[in-house]
Amino acid sequence: MSDQRVDRPGEGGVSDLGYARLDTDRATRTGDPEVVYGAGKTPAQVVEILHALHEAHPERAILATRLSDPVVESVMAEVPDAALDEVARAVTVGPLPQARGTVAVVSAGTSDAPVAAEAALTARVYGAGVKIVNDVGVAGLHRILAAREELLTANCLVVVAGMEGALPSVVGGLTGVPLVAVPTSVGYGASFGGIAALLGMLNSCAPGVTVVNIDNGFGAGVFAARVARAAR
Amino acid sequence: MSDQRVDRPGEGGVSDLGYARLDTDRATRTGDPEVVYGAGKTPAQVVEILHALHEAHPERAILATRLSDPVVESVMAEVPDAALDEVARAVTVGPLPQARGTVAVVSAGTSDAPVAAEAALTARVYGAGVKIVNDVGVAGLHRILAAREELLTANCLVVVAGMEGALPSVVGGLTGVPLVAVPTSVGYGASFGGIAALLGMLNSCAPGVTVVNIDNGFGAGVFAARVARAAR
Amino acid sequence: MSDQRVDRPGEGGVSDLGYARLDTDRATRTGDPEVVYGAGKTPAQVVEILHALHEAHPERAILATRLSDPVVESVMAEVPDAALDEVARAVTVGPLPQARGTVAVVSAGTSDAPVAAEAALTARVYGAGVKIVNDVGVAGLHRILAAREELLTANCLVVVAGMEGALPSVVGGLTGVPLVAVPTSVGYGASFGGIAALLGMLNSCAPGVTVVNIDNGFGAGVFAARVARAAR
Amino acid sequence: MSDQRVDRPGEGGVSDLGYARLDTDRATRTGDPEVVYGAGKTPAQVVEILHALHEAHPERAILATRLSDPVVESVMAEVPDAALDEVARAVTVGPLPQARGTVAVVSAGTSDAPVAAEAALTARVYGAGVKIVNDVGVAGLHRILAAREELLTANCLVVVAGMEGALPSVVGGLTGVPLVAVPTSVGYGASFGGIAALLGMLNSCAPGVTVVNIDNGFGAGVFAARVARAAR
Amino acid sequence: MSDQRVDRPGEGGVSDLGYARLDTDRATRTGDPEVVYGAGKTPAQVVEILHALHEAHPERAILATRLSDPVVESVMAEVPDAALDEVARAVTVGPLPQARGTVAVVSAGTSDAPVAAEAALTARVYGAGVKIVNDVGVAGLHRILAAREELLTANCLVVVAGMEGALPSVVGGLTGVPLVAVPTSVGYGASFGGIAALLGMLNSCAPGVTVVNIDNGFGAGVFAARVARAAR
Amino acid sequence: MSDQRVDRPGEGGVSDLGYARLDTDRATRTGDPEVVYGAGKTPAQVVEILHALHEAHPERAILATRLSDPVVESVMAEVPDAALDEVARAVTVGPLPQARGTVAVVSAGTSDAPVAAEAALTARVYGAGVKIVNDVGVAGLHRILAAREELLTANCLVVVAGMEGALPSVVGGLTGVPLVAVPTSVGYGASFGGIAALLGMLNSCAPGVTVVNIDNGFGAGVFAARVARAAR
Amino acid sequence: MSDQRVDRPGEGGVSDLGYARLDTDRATRTGDPEVVYGAGKTPAQVVEILHALHEAHPERAILATRLSDPVVESVMAEVPDAALDEVARAVTVGPLPQARGTVAVVSAGTSDAPVAAEAALTARVYGAGVKIVNDVGVAGLHRILAAREELLTANCLVVVAGMEGALPSVVGGLTGVPLVAVPTSVGYGASFGGIAALLGMLNSCAPGVTVVNIDNGFGAGVFAARVARAAR
Amino acid sequence: MSDQRVDRPGEGGVSDLGYARLDTDRATRTGDPEVVYGAGKTPAQVVEILHALHEAHPERAILATRLSDPVVESVMAEVPDAALDEVARAVTVGPLPQARGTVAVVSAGTSDAPVAAEAALTARVYGAGVKIVNDVGVAGLHRILAAREELLTANCLVVVAGMEGALPSVVGGLTGVPLVAVPTSVGYGASFGGIAALLGMLNSCAPGVTVVNIDNGFGAGVFAARVARAAR
Repeated sequence: MSDQRVDRPGEGGVSDLGYARLDTDRATRTGDPEVVYGAGKTPAQVVEILHALHEAHPERAILATRLSDPVVESVMAEVPDAALDEVARAVTVGPLPQARGTVAVVSAGTSDAPVAAEAALTARVYGAGVKIVNDVGVAGLHRILAAREELLTANCLVVVAGMEGALPSVVGGLTGVPLVAVPTSVGYGASFGGIAALLGMLNSCAPGVTVVNIDNGFGAGVFAARVARAAR
Repeated sequence: MSDQRVDRPGEGGVSDLGYARLDTDRATRTGDPEVVYGAGKTPAQVVEILHALHEAHPERAILATRLSDPVVESVMAEVPDAALDEVARAVTVGPLPQARGTVAVVSAGTSDAPVAAEAALTARVYGAGVKIVNDVGVAGLHRILAAREELLTANCLVVVAGMEGALPSVVGGLTGVPLVAVPTSVGYGASFGGIAALLGMLNSCAPGVTVVNIDNGFGAGVFAARVARAAR
Repeated sequence: MSDQRVDRPGEGGVSDLGYARLDTDRATRTGDPEVVYGAGKTPAQVVEILHALHEAHPERAILATRLSDPVVESVMAEVPDAALDEVARAVTVGPLPQARGTVAVVSAGTSDAPVAAEAALTARVYGAGVKIVNDVGVAGLHRILAAREELLTANCLVVVAGMEGALPSVVGGLTGVPLVAVPTSVGYGASFGGIAALLGMLNSCAPGVTVVNIDNGFGAGVFAARVARAAR
Repeated sequence: MSDQRVDRPGEGGVSDLGYARLDTDRATRTGDPEVVYGAGKTPAQVVEILHALHEAHPERAILATRLSDPVVESVMAEVPDAALDEVARAVTVGPLPQARGTVAVVSAGTSDAPVAAEAALTARVYGAGVKIVNDVGVAGLHRILAAREELLTANCLVVVAGMEGALPSVVGGLTGVPLVAVPTSVGYGASFGGIAALLGMLNSCAPGVTVVNIDNGFGAGVFAARVARAAR
Repeated sequence: MSDQRVDRPGEGGVSDLGYARLDTDRATRTGDPEVVYGAGKTPAQVVEILHALHEAHPERAILATRLSDPVVESVMAEVPDAALDEVARAVTVGPLPQARGTVAVVSAGTSDAPVAAEAALTARVYGAGVKIVNDVGVAGLHRILAAREELLTANCLVVVAGMEGALPSVVGGLTGVPLVAVPTSVGYGASFGGIAALLGMLNSCAPGVTVVNIDNGFGAGVFAARVARAAR
Repeated sequence: MSDQRVDRPGEGGVSDLGYARLDTDRATRTGDPEVVYGAGKTPAQVVEILHALHEAHPERAILATRLSDPVVESVMAEVPDAALDEVARAVTVGPLPQARGTVAVVSAGTSDAPVAAEAALTARVYGAGVKIVNDVGVAGLHRILAAREELLTANCLVVVAGMEGALPSVVGGLTGVPLVAVPTSVGYGASFGGIAALLGMLNSCAPGVTVVNIDNGFGAGVFAARVARAAR
Repeated sequence: MSDQRVDRPGEGGVSDLGYARLDTDRATRTGDPEVVYGAGKTPAQVVEILHALHEAHPERAILATRLSDPVVESVMAEVPDAALDEVARAVTVGPLPQARGTVAVVSAGTSDAPVAAEAALTARVYGAGVKIVNDVGVAGLHRILAAREELLTANCLVVVAGMEGALPSVVGGLTGVPLVAVPTSVGYGASFGGIAALLGMLNSCAPGVTVVNIDNGFGAGVFAARVARAAR
Repeated sequence: MSDQRVDRPGEGGVSDLGYARLDTDRATRTGDPEVVYGAGKTPAQVVEILHALHEAHPERAILATRLSDPVVESVMAEVPDAALDEVARAVTVGPLPQARGTVAVVSAGTSDAPVAAEAALTARVYGAGVKIVNDVGVAGLHRILAAREELLTANCLVVVAGMEGALPSVVGGLTGVPLVAVPTSVGYGASFGGIAALLGMLNSCAPGVTVVNIDNGFGAGVFAARVARAAR
């Protein structure tokens, strides 16, 4: 096919790798680090993108998420400064920013841990300090009540739950801290891959609960970090 | 249309009113009273059915549910022994059976009260004693915790909630009493007329929660009464 | 029905009006004002609740939302200090708190204005200052770009849109300010009462967008106020 | 990531295995045994949890469900007292409790057998006696009618069916015994992985039918055992 | 708007009334009578169409379905030979064809009667004899069993049911007669306006059950008549 | 509420009416006329907007769609040059542009006529000539075949159908003319307000069929006019 | 588990193979042959069932459907009289019944062929003669028109189509022969595994179209054979 | 099975390969080239079809889409003139037609590239010139604005996007060029395999946006080419 491809050359801050146009000035524009979404990318592509981003801004952190086993292997072998978070299936490259404020990440069951870990790592890379409180499902209230003080001292909460997604309602009734709920695809049958949890959270009777996409620990971490690092 | 209609006359225990075939021996077969589902019936039809059933078995209770305002008016005017439960929009005719065992009906918000009242009245007419605990949403845990002792002494729980439908999970984590959850159509937007609550309850992380149709206080009451009246 | 109703009398901070148990100490617990959700309540009920809450805490603001025409009429006639926001279909009673921080409420079309107004009023009653930017749909980018500076100086954004719900993605690409998206039920056909906008927002390509229920301006306002009033 | 993990050490009755916090006092609290949900857990994890639970309470039964082939192999090789139910894909460890009352588990087709077996084993481990009646679909009424006497003498029924899920309605019309319906994912096309059966059961015309999640034999077994063991 | 409308004048057998092009030769082509679908049409339109059709073919029957109260009134006042079926909300004009073969229409509950009546009247107008068996829900098997002989002697069955839609499976298990199932919108909550019944029927475990649209008594009647009148 | 509203005054080409910001330079930007979407607007609002737009550009056509009866009445009484299309429930003000190219609007049933009329009027106001071919459903192929020549000479086709939405596939198989399909909400039961037709059109086996929202005659008309007026 | 299994021995006509109870008198009851649904069964199970059924009634045909490759291999190797239909992935054992009447099976695209073949083979085994007309999609009307005469002489039509499922409407408009539509899961994206075709067929504008489950060629074949073999 | 198969031999322009009836005169009828949909076909089938079509019309282009790796391999090895588009997973055989008019294909993210490439190649084979503008998501408005001039000079736009599918609204607000939107299945969780993007596009606030099925780059390319090649 001989038709012309439109490639605007050399806009300031844009590197063109063919399969992706990297916007290396984005951090300046939004105050956030650069992120590589690993799903669907080959090991070679992820490694190349990490190298390009790291070279452009060696002083800043880069986050790569949703990495398959082969991608993790390649990255850990070929990118010198990469640090792996095994639970989150994510990698960081470059120095993490100073932590300002605190995000508390709360999760309901052990199966929710990967999404919670992605949220926690993301919040940290985006500049917030992080506390993790795992395995506090609503059918065991004593665990939630025991964690209450920790929740009250955070600047933003990320609450991760699958199945019926009830944890944000219970936590939201205990505190007035801004709360981001993350439904997970944990469950079976009528959980419909996380829809039940998503609907539960959207309909929370606790006021001031906001929600992100199913399994979107990354989005919740970004949001929570922005809130926490701006807090007094 | 001159084609023949098939109407089997005079089977034992069956009265034919044209628009409904009343199975007056049903109680003998299942141990339960007779019930009139009022939705979609005219005032005259409900009154006629109540009269027919009451005449056939004056010693037993009859329950009529889902009554519109005009039906309630006609029934209260024309059926001498009818007793009205205004919140449940239901009526009983004839003496209630002796109460055996106890059903506790718990509801999350004030808007869930009509469904809770239907469940409670139904359980009572089906032969169980009833306790009602209203307005104990999951965003106010202290209320639920305060009611715990009452819940533990019941033989069956009916837990009624709309919106995210999280109450059964929390209550189910506090007790080992058999628990029937009733989702209500209370909510808006992504509650989808009770679907969010229904899915939440079907996916409850508390083991041993069973569920009935949206707003089906009647079904929950029937079931709970059967459990309670058979309990030691 | 002679069964006992369970009514725990006189817990500290709880008034019992029969159809609702008012938790007058809630503000102390969460730092937020008291709110009356008007949908499904009679004019008399809303007026009575407002009086009870106002009497208990005359120095604090009360917010009543989702008021029908007859409720508005009764409240404005019978509650002396009530202030009406006609677009939001909501009323406040009592002095508003001092405004800390700023919430910017952005809406896509004129039909989204009621939800945007509910979000704005709620954020204000919950203690934040508020800016409103109406009618900046994504099909007219020049309007959005013109408002960019105002958005950058806010502490939290509430972005309200129906139909395809694309506005949060565009706004989220322009700023790093925490952003809460509110889908509205504006649209027809395959908008499915706001589902299209809800899904669009949950799948936003702009990182850090969180979402509330369809038409839930109130929830977005609560959340945004909590973020804004805690910001440096 | 150097952020602190919140691990409350040494609460009474809680063992911390890192990936799961075992609540070994749960039985005291609810009267039920301990259960391990095997889906998504590695063979090593399941074996370790079984050992820990068995050591803490050697006199009580433990149930492990939804076990993959490799998990079954590891458990049978490494856990001395484990007893396998091949159809249910589940294992018990420790002495079963004395059977009180009777649960009858009825299933519609041969493909529903695994779910029925899970329900039956669960009910037994939770302390009830169990009868199983397999392969009695609604298109063969003579089979159902032949089993009627057995159903009438049970204290609770569990009725398992896929496809259109009609069996609970037919069984529910034959008896007044409390009935828990379990939809299975058996079917194709418009069965939508069990949704058709789930909806059929939620809309049953037989009063007093309650429902659990698709394929949730475990939940039905828990509930039915609680009902049966408390029955006179 | 001055653009030309395309109206092909005077094709053989086509009358143009402006809002509808009547295909008066259709009967010749398909062997079926002419039908007027009344929903959304004004009384005047229905009356005019009936007159036009009747005039064109006075020797044939016409069927008008889904008639609102005002339409029924106008038709009965202005169309001399119109015969009303009140339950079916339908009218016939002209002599009915001779009945060949027999269609048995079976319905589950009294609320399903209008759809059953529409099916029965339609089958009759399309040339079949008709038997009606009402109120034989699956929760009362003795009624179904009592009607079995009548079902076996029909040439085609139409089985009408709402809620869980289980009746076709039970009837289909009793006979080998061709069976058309009609889901009705009878039910509430998770019946979703007839979807539960529709799915139940599509997934029937009885082989050889076919299904029509929700409440589509007309379509079932057409189909059943074609089968019955061609039967030996 | 004393917070500032953001109202950017006096941008070139923007008039601010409070409830809507009119972009009177839009025509210059896109080559299309101005349009008023009447749904949800009061008669007074529609009249005021029409006056403002007409005054700004008296030489151009304005289209107002989805007008309720009271709006139509007010507009026809108070806007001197308004021309009403009763079937489309729409009004034009100002001189229509010269017609370039031809759009053929084809509809399946008489109930689809309003949507077809909206598409036709819109295409005309947007600068194309229009042909209308009504009432050519797929169950009467001879009508479609008779219209084939007319379809082949158009520059763009708009095909409007409800129920199963099959007409675009059949028409698309007869011609290579660009074809926009419009699903309508005509139907009942499992038509789900137009979803069946929408899905049918999206899955058309005829290549090159594009689709707009349910009942969106306007959108189809805009698109078709742009195609037709640019055609050779 | 020591609980008793309920196995009613030796009812007349029932053989118990452990995993299935074969109802060998079924043919007598319904007039249909015996069928083995192969999905989910092991090769050994299918072979054993075929042997048992064949032995009980060597003079009758048996049909086994939905056979995987290994099952086909085992059956063809170990069941002497088995005849394979490769396209239908089905096998027959024993002599086919004499063909009475004719079923015409029409399919839209080559991908629909396996479902059409299953329908055709089933109809044949159930006692009807069969004609097959493949690859006549609605976007090529000349093919459908060419086959019209063949369709008119059949006693029942089975029309198989995926994607938009429009073929039954077109065929139904050409003939008055009873028509069973079979949606297939052929398609992608918004075909949703056959839902689009299913909805299209349920909403067909051609009267008298009935529908079976997605990909249910078997059910359509059973039904069509019953109609055809009873036809004059 | 001895029943007759209906195979109409030798219609002009139709070759019968057994599994597909090739309509080699189609180009004459619609003005479009021949296309092979590769999904579900074996390598041998695709090769044979390509040979047959190429032999019949060596002077025309053939397009084969949705090719798996083995099919691509076989085709490139066995079809001499085949040209591969790796990104689109498609092949062309024979000389491309002269390009008339211009289609601009715009895509939002790198994951949308395969669908965009399929659209672009298809448009080219159907006779239009093509421009491609990749990776211009709505969260980076500067990229879209930079491409505006190129978009304005095209005759038809194809806009490809997954996730929230907002790009068509933004592009549609910048130009008056006819715009076909293609939702892709890119995304996770509540993107539901492209449904979110599909709904977003159907509800676009930019007038004149039409939509094709999820991932249907082919359909969009066909349509756009027809528009572009007919443009002045």
